[in-house]
Amino acid sequence: MKPVCLVMGAGAGIGGTVGRKFAKEGYHAVLCRRSDAEGLRKLVSGIEAEGGEATGFLLNAVEENALEDRIEHIEREIGPIEVALFNLGAQIGSRTLTELTYKQFELGWRMATFALFRMAKELFPRMEERGGGTFLVTSATAAVRGNAGQHSHAAAMGGRRMLCQTLNAEYAPKGIHVAHILIDGAVDAPDTLGRMLGEEAFQKLREQRGLDADGLMLPEKMAETYYHVSQQHRSAWTHELDLRSFSDLAWWNHR
Amino acid sequence: MKPVCLVMGAGAGIGGTVGRKFAKEGYHAVLCRRSDAEGLRKLVSGIEAEGGEATGFLLNAVEENALEDRIEHIEREIGPIEVALFNLGAQIGSRTLTELTYKQFELGWRMATFALFRMAKELFPRMEERGGGTFLVTSATAAVRGNAGQHSHAAAMGGRRMLCQTLNAEYAPKGIHVAHILIDGAVDAPDTLGRMLGEEAFQKLREQRGLDADGLMLPEKMAETYYHVSQQHRSAWTHELDLRSFSDLAWWNHR
Amino acid sequence: MKPVCLVMGAGAGIGGTVGRKFAKEGYHAVLCRRSDAEGLRKLVSGIEAEGGEATGFLLNAVEENALEDRIEHIEREIGPIEVALFNLGAQIGSRTLTELTYKQFELGWRMATFALFRMAKELFPRMEERGGGTFLVTSATAAVRGNAGQHSHAAAMGGRRMLCQTLNAEYAPKGIHVAHILIDGAVDAPDTLGRMLGEEAFQKLREQRGLDADGLMLPEKMAETYYHVSQQHRSAWTHELDLRSFSDLAWWNHR
Amino acid sequence: MKPVCLVMGAGAGIGGTVGRKFAKEGYHAVLCRRSDAEGLRKLVSGIEAEGGEATGFLLNAVEENALEDRIEHIEREIGPIEVALFNLGAQIGSRTLTELTYKQFELGWRMATFALFRMAKELFPRMEERGGGTFLVTSATAAVRGNAGQHSHAAAMGGRRMLCQTLNAEYAPKGIHVAHILIDGAVDAPDTLGRMLGEEAFQKLREQRGLDADGLMLPEKMAETYYHVSQQHRSAWTHELDLRSFSDLAWWNHR
Repeated sequence: MKPVCLVMGAGAGIGGTVGRKFAKEGYHAVLCRRSDAEGLRKLVSGIEAEGGEATGFLLNAVEENALEDRIEHIEREIGPIEVALFNLGAQIGSRTLTELTYKQFELGWRMATFALFRMAKELFPRMEERGGGTFLVTSATAAVRGNAGQHSHAAAMGGRRMLCQTLNAEYAPKGIHVAHILIDGAVDAPDTLGRMLGEEAFQKLREQRGLDADGLMLPEKMAETYYHVSQQHRSAWTHELDLRSFSDLAWWNHR
Repeated sequence: MKPVCLVMGAGAGIGGTVGRKFAKEGYHAVLCRRSDAEGLRKLVSGIEAEGGEATGFLLNAVEENALEDRIEHIEREIGPIEVALFNLGAQIGSRTLTELTYKQFELGWRMATFALFRMAKELFPRMEERGGGTFLVTSATAAVRGNAGQHSHAAAMGGRRMLCQTLNAEYAPKGIHVAHILIDGAVDAPDTLGRMLGEEAFQKLREQRGLDADGLMLPEKMAETYYHVSQQHRSAWTHELDLRSFSDLAWWNHR
Repeated sequence: MKPVCLVMGAGAGIGGTVGRKFAKEGYHAVLCRRSDAEGLRKLVSGIEAEGGEATGFLLNAVEENALEDRIEHIEREIGPIEVALFNLGAQIGSRTLTELTYKQFELGWRMATFALFRMAKELFPRMEERGGGTFLVTSATAAVRGNAGQHSHAAAMGGRRMLCQTLNAEYAPKGIHVAHILIDGAVDAPDTLGRMLGEEAFQKLREQRGLDADGLMLPEKMAETYYHVSQQHRSAWTHELDLRSFSDLAWWNHR
Repeated sequence: MKPVCLVMGAGAGIGGTVGRKFAKEGYHAVLCRRSDAEGLRKLVSGIEAEGGEATGFLLNAVEENALEDRIEHIEREIGPIEVALFNLGAQIGSRTLTELTYKQFELGWRMATFALFRMAKELFPRMEERGGGTFLVTSATAAVRGNAGQHSHAAAMGGRRMLCQTLNAEYAPKGIHVAHILIDGAVDAPDTLGRMLGEEAFQKLREQRGLDADGLMLPEKMAETYYHVSQQHRSAWTHELDLRSFSDLAWWNHR
């Protein structure tokens, strides 16, 4: 039985691509996403066509017990989750303080912070019992600096980063590797960035940066590092790292 | 009519003491706290005995509309809020991941992050219309680093810090001064630290560090800096500063 | 006999203005700068005209023993140095890696890092013997993030910031207050920014931002905070704070 | 002709081990260290015994032109340097401010900061002409926080970190990948830690942490990550990452 790599937030960008990478490396990829059954089916069959194993589930992570029940089910029916990727974002574009509603602010936290806590609570005791595991967390620039119009996103991501540190402090000595991966740039991901900008603006950006080139971060290249981190020996774990395109300025150098 | 200084979280430690300082400097101190009507009455009468103006309200900040209605009422009945201090904490002591419940984690966020967002949303448009204002935010070590057992506190405070940065980015140019004040040490505050540790342990700590001495941070001394920051000229604002006792190690130097 | 406030780097901007503030508050201001005897004479007589006490010295801080001998002399002839401001900058404008010479890089370090170490070594044991003292350090954005063309400045300032932390860790418990003051914006200082940009560009910047207004940071307003920090009670010391104009973006929000 | 991987500071710990890893992956490893010709010879012959290519040079990096001449020679005689590892440390153990001499403080800077600047100045224009290159920099906890007794080390490392950021800002768009690798823990390296602690204390530490176990960071495991970073696609570069043993606390959680 293959070890399971669970991806929470498996769109066509980072999540799905990392899942595919782990499948290629011998894991059973379990891909969860909120919507787009068709897209999910394609991801799974794409992995299978490459000889990999994958299962897909539609799942609304903010729904009560959705995460918890799914994890319970996966562990029982598919296998022990050795690696989990938390890849839920909460970027809703720029909103001024007056525009942003309580509901939106709360939803940001439910997606980006609370769901991570719930997932850790459900997973870590199981991993601890098995002697270890890996928890990869996709994060964003907003986790380290707040910008105008980013109230919901930054508050949620700032919480996410600190939570990764508390989890690491408590669980690293128990063999669970928590990695906070700071994505500091635009990812070539039609499902998220594309949807946020609108198709036209997204195409314009891609052309500006060079279509098929690497001005945008390429998920399949990012996946190499996600995988590497998951395979680090426990005497040399990385807890935090950044990823950006060579052509992009670091967050501390740009607006 | 005196300008109003509103303190959200006005216990016997930082909150009440900062309120008293502002009252001494000519503000009408409006003190809000969740419980202990007797303690609140003493704070108010203590200020009045010194010739200051103060009003006290019991208020559960996490309750729907509690903050918002109170601010609306203060602005209408007492006067424009020129300075506000957000002083709600969310330290519940050390809890392991398995001990900590969803409810506790959520409550931490409701107190420490969401209530701040709600207060800013209610206050900032009023301040902006008047050309400016000051928003002082008491924060904690957990806003900059996560430690074992601090899942709820660190996630909430990490969100708080990033939120202060987004508010600052959006509102500083509009004349609203947001200051994130990192309290990096134990405060001589019987209401919070005292209650958390229990009376005996608190007395022991005070004796260890020197009763009446300054091993613990003294609220009346801290209040001097809170007040100074509120009076900074807009060409030289501080957004973030730390406060600790000379005898304490900085957070980056200790466990 | 008045306590001494020693300013190393007392130009017409922050240094001289902070000296004047301390003189107004009852200190004997000792102002040291590298050049411009006439400017120094004006600073001193300006302070005296306000009823303050001041002495000026021309001094090249990077010269062997220059700092050390001067401090020895001041302590013997003028009085014990209670407060010292290290205000030497090392901003030489933008230089690419290939343009920047070894000599320039080394000079940056000699000015911004090594001179601070020398001053601490000379002063701190004297302060410790007297039971305490204050060491204010003007710092810059380059201490917390490196930018293109800033190799010398950032390396020197990054060293400065860490050095302030080591000094604080060792000497705070001995009663010496070390404060790292991050100046994150353009100061209305003809001697440094003015010289660097050239008169025309400097005037243009001032006009853009509003002459006599507060787009640029006003040294006399900044001096209020320098003074406040020096007067903090030892139970509530600030080790690091930032200062910027309300109309400026924080360093983490701009290029 | 194999591409060259140059290691500056190739002792028996990180430096030599990373060199060996790159040799195994098809690079010609050029190993430079200050002393111990015998140890260097063993490193080289060890690599050759595994079928790799390596050359060793004794070199005092702080000596005038030593670095520069060696790089010039390597490029001419061995081949273009594709990857360089700057692995010079400047940890001299704990020294109080009064114990630490000017000479020691300056030497720390010459080793840890200035030598890095010199190496970048010599290498980067060559790499730029060839369209790219990789510059790996071993760094230490002292680059992000200063501690008592660490004046020289922290000042030098703080400068190093900021310098890596300025180099990255200027050269990443030109295809040169600069990675600042924060080693946050004790490395199983008899040459440095062993020498610093003395043999007895080093053995005691190893035993405490578990000989042959991974309480200490194992250089051959760390080398995997050094190598991975050097192979990242330019659309997904890491500029900063930390490495520590699972059993160690992160720097923000310990003394």
